[in-house]
Amino acid sequence: MKIGLMGLGTVGTGVVHLINQNGKNIEKKIGEKIEIKKILVKDPNKKRTPLAEGKITFNADDILEDEEIDVVVEVMGKEHPALDYIIKALKSGKHVVTANKEVIAVHGKELIKLATENKVSLLYEASVGGGIPIIRPLKQCLAANKIYEIKGILNGTTNYILTEMKEKGLDFEEALKDAQQKGYAEADPTDDVEGFDAARKLAILCTLAFNKFTLPEKIYTKGIKSISKSDIKYAEELGYNVKLIAYAKIDEKERLEAWVHPVMIKKDNPLSGVNGVFNAILVDGNAVGEVMFYGQGAGMMPTASAVVADIMDVKNHIVIQNGCEDADLLPIVDTVSKYYIRLIAFDKPGVMSKITGILGDKGISLLSVVQKGVLGDTAEIVLITHIANTGKVFEALEEIQNLREVESIESVIRVEGE
Amino acid sequence: MKIGLMGLGTVGTGVVHLINQNGKNIEKKIGEKIEIKKILVKDPNKKRTPLAEGKITFNADDILEDEEIDVVVEVMGKEHPALDYIIKALKSGKHVVTANKEVIAVHGKELIKLATENKVSLLYEASVGGGIPIIRPLKQCLAANKIYEIKGILNGTTNYILTEMKEKGLDFEEALKDAQQKGYAEADPTDDVEGFDAARKLAILCTLAFNKFTLPEKIYTKGIKSISKSDIKYAEELGYNVKLIAYAKIDEKERLEAWVHPVMIKKDNPLSGVNGVFNAILVDGNAVGEVMFYGQGAGMMPTASAVVADIMDVKNHIVIQNGCEDADLLPIVDTVSKYYIRLIAFDKPGVMSKITGILGDKGISLLSVVQKGVLGDTAEIVLITHIANTGKVFEALEEIQNLREVESIESVIRVEGE
Repeated sequence: MKIGLMGLGTVGTGVVHLINQNGKNIEKKIGEKIEIKKILVKDPNKKRTPLAEGKITFNADDILEDEEIDVVVEVMGKEHPALDYIIKALKSGKHVVTANKEVIAVHGKELIKLATENKVSLLYEASVGGGIPIIRPLKQCLAANKIYEIKGILNGTTNYILTEMKEKGLDFEEALKDAQQKGYAEADPTDDVEGFDAARKLAILCTLAFNKFTLPEKIYTKGIKSISKSDIKYAEELGYNVKLIAYAKIDEKERLEAWVHPVMIKKDNPLSGVNGVFNAILVDGNAVGEVMFYGQGAGMMPTASAVVADIMDVKNHIVIQNGCEDADLLPIVDTVSKYYIRLIAFDKPGVMSKITGILGDKGISLLSVVQKGVLGDTAEIVLITHIANTGKVFEALEEIQNLREVESIESVIRVEGE
Repeated sequence: MKIGLMGLGTVGTGVVHLINQNGKNIEKKIGEKIEIKKILVKDPNKKRTPLAEGKITFNADDILEDEEIDVVVEVMGKEHPALDYIIKALKSGKHVVTANKEVIAVHGKELIKLATENKVSLLYEASVGGGIPIIRPLKQCLAANKIYEIKGILNGTTNYILTEMKEKGLDFEEALKDAQQKGYAEADPTDDVEGFDAARKLAILCTLAFNKFTLPEKIYTKGIKSISKSDIKYAEELGYNVKLIAYAKIDEKERLEAWVHPVMIKKDNPLSGVNGVFNAILVDGNAVGEVMFYGQGAGMMPTASAVVADIMDVKNHIVIQNGCEDADLLPIVDTVSKYYIRLIAFDKPGVMSKITGILGDKGISLLSVVQKGVLGDTAEIVLITHIANTGKVFEALEEIQNLREVESIESVIRVEGE
C-alpha cells in the first residue's frame, strides 16, 4: 500500500515514526507493507525526521496526481488548503484518512457523500479523541443501539487547566501559563479555552451517534475563562468537579440539544475522575446503557495511533452511508439545567432580596444561597438553582447584572443531575 | 438476513427484544432486515416472550441444516453442547455470533481456524465485557499499537460485592447474599467469586491483544472470598480501593504474565472508580498510551447490544487470522509485586520478630508493619512488602502459617504500583 502523507507536523511525524516502529507487526496484520511514498511539507528549511528523507515534496499534485498512491493521509490541520486536497483526492479515487476536525466538522457531510460516489473510504478516527477509539465503536459496536446522549471531555488543554486549578489551587491565568510552558496549550489558546475545539468534535460525534448534522458554530459554546479557583473550591465542597463538557442529546421529538459548557460533575460520575490531558466520552444507548471511552485525546503518538489504524483499515472499510440529515437544533434558551452562579455584590442591605426576587419572578427557585464573606465593601454570593429554563436564567442574569448593587457576575456553571 | 438463535435465556431474550425494538434503525444501517427464523430451546414448558411464537424448535438440526439460515447466534452458554453446534454451523458455511466465553476461551483458536477455512465469520464481542466495545477496538482501532499490558475489572458480580463491602461496611458473605438477592450473583457463585469467569475473559483478551493463546485454567487465579471488611478499610486508609483485577502483560522476552488476583488500586487510577456491576478494561499500547473502556459487563440488554452489533457486522467482517500462538506463560512465582498481608497471631512476645525474620530471610523487605490491636489472646497484624518475588512471598507465607504463634493468614492482596 503506497500512501501520500500531507503534512509533517506533530501528527505527521508521529505517523512516520509509528509506521517505522511497528511496521513489521502492521504488515503481519494486514498482509501488505505500508510505504510512505511522498510527504507534502511547506517550509523548505525546517528540520525533519531522517525517516522523511528522499520523500519530501512541496507540491500537493505530486501526491494527488500520483497514480501509485492509493491512500492520502491528510494531517496538515486547518480548513484550507486541506479541504481542497481531500476533495481532489476523493475525486481521483484515492482513499483518504484525515485527523482534521476543522474540515470534518464543517464539511464532513458532503465529503462522505463524495467518498461514497467515488467508491472510496474517508476515515477520520483521529479527528475526535486522538487515539481513543470512539468513531468505530459508535459506528459498529454500538450500531444496534439508539443512542440518546453523549457527554464528553473532548479537549485535553482545558481539562489539564481545570485539573491544575484544582490540584494546585491555581487561578485560570496561572494554570493556562503553566499549560503553555508544558506545550499543552498553544500561544493563542482561544480555540481550546473558548470551547471551539470541543464544539467541532461534538459536531462530528452528533453525525455519528444521531445522524444529525450541525455546524459547530451553531452549537452554544462557553469556555472556561471565567472559572476561578473559588468556583473550583466551592464545587469541591459540594462534592463536584468542574469539567468542560461537550453535551448532546436527542429528544423524543428528534430535536438535537447540543452545547459546550462548564459543568459541575458529581464525583461518583466516571467523567469526574478524568484528569489532566486525558479525554473521555460517555455514551448512553438504549440497550447498552452507559459506556465510556477514555484515553489521551491528543499528542503525537496517540493521534498517530488512530491515523495508522485508519490506514490499516482503509481498504477493508465498507462505506456505510447513513444519510446524515440536518439537525433540528434546540435553542439553548429552551434547554434546562441546574445552575451555579457566583457574583460579587456591594455589601448593602436588601441586595440579596433584590437578587432572589428577580429569580423568583422568572420562576427560578433556589437550591441554596451562600454569602461567602465580605471583601472590602463587596460580598461574594454563590447561588445554586433548581432545574430551570436556561432562557429564564439568562434573562434573570441580565437583570441581576444591571442592578446597581451588583458589581459583576463572575461565573455561571451548569450543575449535573436532576 | 435470516438467523437461527440457539438459546432463549436472558441474553437470547434480549436479542429478540432488541431486534424487535430497534429493527427499523438496524435495517436502515445495514440495508437488510434481520429476521429470526428459528429459536432453539430446551424446556417445552417455560414461559417465553410472545415475540418467539411460531419460531421455537427443540432440535438443533432444524437450525444447523436449514439452508436459508446464514447466521447462527449461539447464546446458550456453557461448553457443551454449544461447542458442537458452533463447529457444525461453521462447517456448513454459516457465520456464527456467540456470547459464549467458556467456548471461546478454551476453543477459540481452533474455531477461528475453522471459520477461516470455511470462509465465514466467527464473532464474539459479547463474550468479554458484555456491551462494552472491546474486541473490535483491540482488533481494529488499536491495531497499529504493540499492546503491552491489560488490566481489567472483568467480572461484575465480584465488583458489585467489593463495592457493597466498601460502601456499606459489609463482610464478604453479607455482600454475596445481597448480590444473590438482587440477581447479580448466582445461587452457586463459584465461577464469579473464585475468579474463573474473569480468567476466561482474560484468556480471550490475551489472544486479541498479544496473539497469545493460553487455557484459562493455566492462568493463576485467586478470587475474593478471603477479602474481609477490615481489608477494605485498611485499603481505604492507605488511599486504595480493592478490586479483582485480571492482568496480562507481555514482557521483552515475549513471555506472558497473566493472573487474576485481588489488587489494591490507587484511588487516582481510573479503574479505582469503577463501581457496582460495571466493568472496565485498561489497555496500554506503545503509541496510544493508556486507553480505558467502561460499561456494563453483563445483563440482558447490554449483552444483547454486543450480540446484535456482531450480527449487523457479520457479513462485512473480514476474517483476519493473525495466527495466534501458544503463550509462553510466566510462572506466577516468577512475577513480582508489592503484597498486603493480614494475619492473626497469638499475642505473645517475639511473634513479630519471627514473622519479619522469615520475610527477611527470603529477601523480602517491608514497607510497613501495623499491629492493629488485640482481640482476646490474638492480635491482628497487617504487613505491606516492597516489590517482592511472588515465589519468595509464597514460601514465606507457608513458613509463617506454620509458626505456632500464628493462628491464620487471613488475606493476601497485591498492591499496585512500583
